[in-house]
Amino acid sequence: MRISELSERSGVAVATVKYYLREGLLPAGRSVGATRAEYDETHLARLRLVRALVEAGVSVAQARRVMEALDSPPTSRHDLLGKAQYALPAPHADVEVSPEVRSLLVDLGWSVSPDAPALHSLTGAVEAARAAGVPVSPTTLRSYARATEEIARVDLASVPTDDLASALHRVVAGTVLVDPVLASLRRLAQEHFSGTG
Amino acid sequence: MRISELSERSGVAVATVKYYLREGLLPAGRSVGATRAEYDETHLARLRLVRALVEAGVSVAQARRVMEALDSPPTSRHDLLGKAQYALPAPHADVEVSPEVRSLLVDLGWSVSPDAPALHSLTGAVEAARAAGVPVSPTTLRSYARATEEIARVDLASVPTDDLASALHRVVAGTVLVDPVLASLRRLAQEHFSGTG
Repeated sequence: MRISELSERSGVAVATVKYYLREGLLPAGRSVGATRAEYDETHLARLRLVRALVEAGVSVAQARRVMEALDSPPTSRHDLLGKAQYALPAPHADVEVSPEVRSLLVDLGWSVSPDAPALHSLTGAVEAARAAGVPVSPTTLRSYARATEEIARVDLASVPTDDLASALHRVVAGTVLVDPVLASLRRLAQEHFSGTG
Repeated sequence: MRISELSERSGVAVATVKYYLREGLLPAGRSVGATRAEYDETHLARLRLVRALVEAGVSVAQARRVMEALDSPPTSRHDLLGKAQYALPAPHADVEVSPEVRSLLVDLGWSVSPDAPALHSLTGAVEAARAAGVPVSPTTLRSYARATEEIARVDLASVPTDDLASALHRVVAGTVLVDPVLASLRRLAQEHFSGTG
């Protein structure tokens, strides 16, 4: 398809598609003639993912790193989650992992790489909440962690098992784009239990 | 305390504190002399909350609405969650609530106001995920919802029961600031189950 059709089917303006091409977020099309290029369904899928990441607040530079990870899919299913997560932006990367977070993982029996970016993000997020007057006790944190185990099981059950490249696409997109789904559900559940509790 | 101490204890620069005062995010201090004002612990708590909201990506205009809600605390515990949620920024406010989302709530047995902002946010978030190649089946959505019930129970258990004004502060801050805690825990749980699954 031409760039105009790519734009129409993705809902992304032609100028923005060209910007993503220049920024390396989208691979170049196949040249047909001096000034025209031809794109296919893989471009469309990639473009929709870039758009969704950017709309979810991921910067263009971060999205480029994610796309680079997608371009070198892992060789085993075991690497899949690691590859996806380490490519995704993780807030508070400069915060040192707290002893509390390390011992929480031991308590939970979770086996996680000692340099997982989410360990820094978790430490920073807990500190930020406490600094703003939300105490988040160790017991509360543990209860939250147990609740997220069920979410992670659902996440993993929906990853395709056939093709590692499409599984990676799914994990990356699902990790970022399901967070707002969960945040909305949490608010609705709060309202429900608040009324009936 | 003086503005310099307020700045020091909150870690927010004096110029930023002044900006928040001008924007109405922080109530004025008690005037002592022509050019000086005195602040107290309530200013400090409010300033830390504003800072945390802004760092979590809430705009200054949205934060002002949250602060206005905090200035008129609800008269009953029942109103508390509603008041907090309706003041907080909710993405996709202009997206019409889908029949799928309405029937999900019926299935779940959740009793929620028909104009809850999170209904729009949920519809928009599910659409955005699907558009980017994350299918989110109705069954998956229902499983996520069940997992968030446990999170909401933990949320509600940690709201103070004595004082409605501080309970509102806690709910507002907790709603926004616990989302990143849960997102980090979800990534760690994914990594754990991915390795052992």
